[in-house]
Amino acid sequence: MKVRVIVTLKNGVLDPQGRAIHHALEGLGFEGVNDVRAGRVIELDVADSTSDAALDEMCAKLLANMVIENYRIEKAA
Amino acid sequence: MKVRVIVTLKNGVLDPQGRAIHHALEGLGFEGVNDVRAGRVIELDVADSTSDAALDEMCAKLLANMVIENYRIEKAA
Repeated sequence: MKVRVIVTLKNGVLDPQGRAIHHALEGLGFEGVNDVRAGRVIELDVADSTSDAALDEMCAKLLANMVIENYRIEKAA
Repeated sequence: MKVRVIVTLKNGVLDPQGRAIHHALEGLGFEGVNDVRAGRVIELDVADSTSDAALDEMCAKLLANMVIENYRIEKAA
């Protein structure tokens, strides 16, 4: 089973990487970019029997820093 | 318009970060994890008038390293 975990910074947490990308896009002449946030994606290939609870636990224990980050789990159709 | 760009390493490119996550998950006792690939996600808030071609150009010029990475553009519904 293919699972995608998207880890993003919580709102209100400064995102210097996103700001640098935003600045660089403007420097390259792209217009109309209002906001950029950078995050991580982790693509897991897990056994079909893996429970949602186990996936949640992986995220909370290792993949995301719950103090400053949110995660979202998306399963491939 | 909210646009999500997912940047992942091409198949065949070594992914030490993914391997480290895989190893750590096993060390934490999670079973059934077959493979882990790490990548980046960039969430853009762009003007509604932004064309697909402009988004592609942003990815090719700045967001992804086309030599070793693939990108996928996903628009929020």
